[in-house]
Amino acid sequence: MTLIAIPARISCADATFESDFAARLHWSADTDAAIEQRVADILADVRRRGDAAVLEYTQRFDGLQAAALAELELTQAELKAAFDGLPAAQRDALQAAARRVRAYHEAQKQACGESWSYRDEDGTLLGQKVTPLDRVGIYVPGGKAAYPSSVLMNAIPANVAGVGEIVMVVPTPKGEKNPLVLAAAHVAGVTRAFAIGGAQAIAALAYGTATVPKVDKITGPGNAYVASAKKRVFGTVGIDMIAGPSEILVLADASTPPEWVAMDLFSQAEHDELAQSILLCPDAAYIDAVQREIDRLLPAMPRAEIIAKSLTGRGALIHTRSMEEACAISNRIAPEHLEISSREPHRWEPLLRHAGAIFLGAYTSESLGDYCAGPNHVLPTSGTARFSSPLGVYDFQKRSSLIEVSEAGAQVLGPIAATLAHGEGLQAHARAAEMRLKP
Amino acid sequence: MTLIAIPARISCADATFESDFAARLHWSADTDAAIEQRVADILADVRRRGDAAVLEYTQRFDGLQAAALAELELTQAELKAAFDGLPAAQRDALQAAARRVRAYHEAQKQACGESWSYRDEDGTLLGQKVTPLDRVGIYVPGGKAAYPSSVLMNAIPANVAGVGEIVMVVPTPKGEKNPLVLAAAHVAGVTRAFAIGGAQAIAALAYGTATVPKVDKITGPGNAYVASAKKRVFGTVGIDMIAGPSEILVLADASTPPEWVAMDLFSQAEHDELAQSILLCPDAAYIDAVQREIDRLLPAMPRAEIIAKSLTGRGALIHTRSMEEACAISNRIAPEHLEISSREPHRWEPLLRHAGAIFLGAYTSESLGDYCAGPNHVLPTSGTARFSSPLGVYDFQKRSSLIEVSEAGAQVLGPIAATLAHGEGLQAHARAAEMRLKP
Repeated sequence: MTLIAIPARISCADATFESDFAARLHWSADTDAAIEQRVADILADVRRRGDAAVLEYTQRFDGLQAAALAELELTQAELKAAFDGLPAAQRDALQAAARRVRAYHEAQKQACGESWSYRDEDGTLLGQKVTPLDRVGIYVPGGKAAYPSSVLMNAIPANVAGVGEIVMVVPTPKGEKNPLVLAAAHVAGVTRAFAIGGAQAIAALAYGTATVPKVDKITGPGNAYVASAKKRVFGTVGIDMIAGPSEILVLADASTPPEWVAMDLFSQAEHDELAQSILLCPDAAYIDAVQREIDRLLPAMPRAEIIAKSLTGRGALIHTRSMEEACAISNRIAPEHLEISSREPHRWEPLLRHAGAIFLGAYTSESLGDYCAGPNHVLPTSGTARFSSPLGVYDFQKRSSLIEVSEAGAQVLGPIAATLAHGEGLQAHARAAEMRLKP
Repeated sequence: MTLIAIPARISCADATFESDFAARLHWSADTDAAIEQRVADILADVRRRGDAAVLEYTQRFDGLQAAALAELELTQAELKAAFDGLPAAQRDALQAAARRVRAYHEAQKQACGESWSYRDEDGTLLGQKVTPLDRVGIYVPGGKAAYPSSVLMNAIPANVAGVGEIVMVVPTPKGEKNPLVLAAAHVAGVTRAFAIGGAQAIAALAYGTATVPKVDKITGPGNAYVASAKKRVFGTVGIDMIAGPSEILVLADASTPPEWVAMDLFSQAEHDELAQSILLCPDAAYIDAVQREIDRLLPAMPRAEIIAKSLTGRGALIHTRSMEEACAISNRIAPEHLEISSREPHRWEPLLRHAGAIFLGAYTSESLGDYCAGPNHVLPTSGTARFSSPLGVYDFQKRSSLIEVSEAGAQVLGPIAATLAHGEGLQAHARAAEMRLKP
């Protein structure tokens, strides 16, 4: 079978542009009522029966038998042994990536994660105290899509934030453990780890069981069951975002070797048939060149079939009338990953308002950012970059307002508060303020 | 009828403490399946029929008739007229409160809401660009619980963040408008306002209609229908937290006049029968004194009936063995409002890990913070302060990672990324990194 990958060719100058564009962008996160109900039942059961329920589901779904849940704890020694057993190149790569991710998140903490306060002219102190969460849970998928890089990207920001305990859960179907995932947990500072997964693992983390400690927040990617379970426990614990399919948008001014751009589009498409790769470029000849590179490079790719389905089904090569127009369209999409593949990336960057991560210049392939540049690879998908942010140290911290009204301040603030409280019909609020006034 | 307000007396030294404590703290946010279904139907209908559906629901639920949704827009002139028509004391109080809230949130933006970046030793740029949301919606309840202070607390942080458009919705049952709410919208910088409410207003903001613009995020309190609608549109737009009943916890070392503490407990209890007021104190005689002040002050309170029900049903006076123990119990509760009513508030503050807002010293009544000290009064409830934060400028901003890998940096990062990508079976990721290596 000859595979072909033909992204949709769309032109901004066409009368049909708006409908072509809308058709290609359309994606809806359908919820499956059957999954929802299954997940609700599992959560209720784990809440009621704790360890016993988790053990039963683990046996049923992962084919993994144990006499007690404690047997499924992965010890620190086991994580370290997994690391020690890796080839040196993988050990070095994991450590180098972890070092860079840590350095970036330490800079992030310094820039936006420290307590602050000031005193006003009356001596009243105002500020915010920033503190780490006590305990968080990190979900790591098992099986085929087991990504050690995700372990680093979730656990390191938590560790940098100062979280007291980082509890990882990772399913090990039929007992098969991924040594890279275990090694990444060792490198990233995971405190405890359990070989459990699915909705039952989310329930164990959210409610706590005799063996698995209750956490304050759960982060990390997962399948439809895990996503549904996270949504349901939201409020009992904090959660990170619920991710949709991954996306890349490349803004190109035709200065980058077209094979680089083709491979960057592949690197998104190879994740998943639903992943979306889009090129925006004002140069039609360059778009042709990228399509030729797609044709040339595809056959050698081990994941060619997924790439072909993704590019043909959801990919797009969009011919714009200018780079400015390309930027405007990018803002409408609000992509997860945004490459500015241009000689002048800093000319276009200020025009780009919504994106999870912005990769500037031809040398910044998304894959460098995915693994080791330093910034987080957990990013808002499906246009949610309009209102949300990459996973960061701030997701593992919370803030408490600090207010210390001085005696002098109370004399100034009291009458203001009392007037507004009376206006809202809340007289005890008013009296509490008035009692602090000097006679 | 003689009202009595008798909070539960609980002692840490009692053998039954744990069960007494658990019984008093118990609160569960039950979801009502009938409300859920009604809300789902309304959302789907507004999404399909837009303006016409919003008009119909407004007529049905608010008894308010209009030929077109545009007639329900509250103009800037109308907001200003409401402000101009207030008594001078209310105008001054609103402006003074707005000034202080603005100053605090500007300090917050400076402390934790600015873009940052650095270059590493290879010349690679890493950082985060912080940008305001384009357009947000603010829900303001109408009718009895119409709080102009909430308008300030939601709109001002959005305005300070630099949000382009702030769209307020407020139901006006039978056409009755609250002049303080409209005036607060004028003072706080609301851009557009509509006299609509309920799930239909949330749907209009989330999906957009011909008249109401689609927003990126919705914040603000509301009843069970509004809360359910916000949960359902989460993902399409961002939302703030879903609030439970309001709570205050007072840590007292017996140095504050007991009538001040009694009134502070009242000021929470008067919100709602489900509101929770708790005192933690190591001095039994002082607890007795506070109970006497409760008895003495209650009859004069206009909202005595609500206060009595709240304190008797959910309030607690807890006798601890020490201030240290009081702090430890406070951390278990993670209260929304936490007063340290002590001569040494800075001695205890470092021991307090989880709280929405911390009020230090006897002069800092919660009500001063509610209205005008400066910090936000939208705070995490029901123990969610363990993992979430006060509403702030950061809720109206989002972050985009910035990465510009230099040519030299690509030579260092490429082999690391390629090794990890091969380990995960993602060969296009590896190839994209390898293509940037010099031969």
